[in-house]
Amino acid sequence: MNIGLITIGAELLNGARTDTNAAWIGQEVIPVGGNIKWHMTVNDDSHSIESALNSVPKEIELVLCTGGLGPTHDDITATILYQYFGAEAEFDEAYWKLLTEKFAARERVIPESNRNQAMKPNIGEVIPNPVGSARGLHFSNDHFHLFAMPGVPAEMKSMMKNTVLPWINDKSDKESVVTTWRTTGIMESVLFERLDPVLKNHPEVHIAFLPKFTGVDLRISSDNQSSMDAFFDEAKAIVEKYHFGDEGTELEDALGALLIKTGKTIATAESCTGGLIGDRLTNVSGSSSFYKGGVIAYSNTIKVKTLNVNQFTLDNHGAVSEETALEMARGVRISMDAEIGLSTTGIAGPTGGTDEKPVGLVYVGISTDGYEKVYRFKFTPHRKTNKLMTSQAALNITRIYLLNGS
Amino acid sequence: MNIGLITIGAELLNGARTDTNAAWIGQEVIPVGGNIKWHMTVNDDSHSIESALNSVPKEIELVLCTGGLGPTHDDITATILYQYFGAEAEFDEAYWKLLTEKFAARERVIPESNRNQAMKPNIGEVIPNPVGSARGLHFSNDHFHLFAMPGVPAEMKSMMKNTVLPWINDKSDKESVVTTWRTTGIMESVLFERLDPVLKNHPEVHIAFLPKFTGVDLRISSDNQSSMDAFFDEAKAIVEKYHFGDEGTELEDALGALLIKTGKTIATAESCTGGLIGDRLTNVSGSSSFYKGGVIAYSNTIKVKTLNVNQFTLDNHGAVSEETALEMARGVRISMDAEIGLSTTGIAGPTGGTDEKPVGLVYVGISTDGYEKVYRFKFTPHRKTNKLMTSQAALNITRIYLLNGS
Repeated sequence: MNIGLITIGAELLNGARTDTNAAWIGQEVIPVGGNIKWHMTVNDDSHSIESALNSVPKEIELVLCTGGLGPTHDDITATILYQYFGAEAEFDEAYWKLLTEKFAARERVIPESNRNQAMKPNIGEVIPNPVGSARGLHFSNDHFHLFAMPGVPAEMKSMMKNTVLPWINDKSDKESVVTTWRTTGIMESVLFERLDPVLKNHPEVHIAFLPKFTGVDLRISSDNQSSMDAFFDEAKAIVEKYHFGDEGTELEDALGALLIKTGKTIATAESCTGGLIGDRLTNVSGSSSFYKGGVIAYSNTIKVKTLNVNQFTLDNHGAVSEETALEMARGVRISMDAEIGLSTTGIAGPTGGTDEKPVGLVYVGISTDGYEKVYRFKFTPHRKTNKLMTSQAALNITRIYLLNGS
Repeated sequence: MNIGLITIGAELLNGARTDTNAAWIGQEVIPVGGNIKWHMTVNDDSHSIESALNSVPKEIELVLCTGGLGPTHDDITATILYQYFGAEAEFDEAYWKLLTEKFAARERVIPESNRNQAMKPNIGEVIPNPVGSARGLHFSNDHFHLFAMPGVPAEMKSMMKNTVLPWINDKSDKESVVTTWRTTGIMESVLFERLDPVLKNHPEVHIAFLPKFTGVDLRISSDNQSSMDAFFDEAKAIVEKYHFGDEGTELEDALGALLIKTGKTIATAESCTGGLIGDRLTNVSGSSSFYKGGVIAYSNTIKVKTLNVNQFTLDNHGAVSEETALEMARGVRISMDAEIGLSTTGIAGPTGGTDEKPVGLVYVGISTDGYEKVYRFKFTPHRKTNKLMTSQAALNITRIYLLNGS
């Protein structure tokens, strides 16, 4: 089904807000057989909204409209839509009663200004709003159907999931299967080279490569599940080592699940990442069962005092060295009584680099009772990127250790 | 000047990429007198691009076009633009020579396939690309001027800054002044109530309130600097306490600058924030001069062993308590030999709450040689939001302590 999107709001045009609704909608309609073919962003004034409606291309069967509804707006969008589709506004006593009760439950009297939210059109339909009070609208004419929703992401998403996506699924003739494989530890170009021969065997499967600093997401789509499965069978072995999860899974979630499964605990000794690894691990709900804690050892004194790093090691090899990384990982594992110690030390930049130890040089150490290893990386000139890439490498090293024992 | 925006690319419509270029452009054109009035996103095929060009509204004087240029595209955009503006393609020997030399400098032979990047139109202009090899295009007809740029953000931004924004500034008759004040520690509604009377005195000044979990950004704009200054004079005293910086400044940057100015050092003891405060402090370049380090004390054992929290305190008041927060802040200050100790302890959620200590309950402690205080907060049911809001509160408490001594 060819879908058009109209997003309404001055804040989108003047850049006060980035339009994240559009990308979300663009992704969500694909599995139910829809495709956004046209997208227009306009100001919330009558002239602009009218022009947008009048310029919907012929091939569009459905228009999704977000923004311009809700209590802080002066109903311009609703008014224009009523006019455009020839509808009359009626007062919805039942909904007004419901709203009044909602307010009463919070011991409040409903302001009269809320009466506009209880209006409904005499033709078309209202779309329930499970998470807010402004309802959506559904109209149609000879050319297209239109669903209008509020711009607040939570309200829009809830209407999409409950009403609009099922409607599209019902009306569209073809289905589409989409999966995202999230990978880390392999470059886009290498991944492409390895997957290209497999893709050639499965021309009905499409992949979008979406590289980020932390890895490459593969957005895999096809018209049918059996082509998809055949592709999966062949591709699995190639990406297995790098594929840590699917859409919505962060690397720390995957690692957390593995730590819980194996019953192992972890402690962190962070220098160049400054707490980012601890932050990511504690983003996982239930992390207190596997994360003992950590030391952010930004100064050398703390490396010696709290992590038991040898002063001799620091003097002879420097804070950014294989030897220091190893002693940090071992030190935090022992002092925090964890099974796995994980450490980072490096030159985050943008300053502080030398010829011998340039900005972007990073060591990640892992220490367990029977296995210890230090990895060396050379990342970028950029501080935050280096911190992010280091944390990703460290979490992935731990994930692979738990899977393979090395 | 009324500006239209055409962003080209299937990846924008299918949601594989969020369109961040549009918001950036929307913001940047305002100070030079431009306003995005219309924005269309289309697929990179001839039909869609042509339709977009044909539907540019009458009132638009300038069209900015991003995407669909560059080595990975098959020149559809350029071809359509040449046709639309009646231009012929010519081979640009001088640019080809430049490209050849660039490749030679990297000891490479330029592939023949790059020849298309050396084409230029016989009318209109090419826009230099300081950071890539695909140049932009500038055409005009009786209705509008058009600048076409690549979609790669770094290349687009560089062309905008060097060529397009100066051009708009030159052509537009009115100037616009925009400033963003970033605030934290005050709710949007309260801020609005306090600023509303001031705004009424300055009708030529406009404010957009942009609330986030970490604070409210105020985007203040006016047609002239003198109205702006008059507004600033009156508003300053009201927001002073909450206003930590302007566009592009994070709270940790503001705090870092204050720590450097006062020559004070800080250490952190984080429980519920799990390292996020350390992460944010170490995002500041030069943080090693003021940040000693921290302890991520996720388990009680570590609170006792590493931070010297009294076992009696934990047994009698619990880990999430005013008393524990205070001992954590004091403990880390002393053990890491810093002037300021900062601590967090709370129920991040989504599980682990009780009637007495619900999810979202957080204590932030600050300890110095002569001043100690614990703040109590009740945040949200959401883990990451709670971590973020706690880190923001802790950094702001430290900022205000450094400003006021309490």
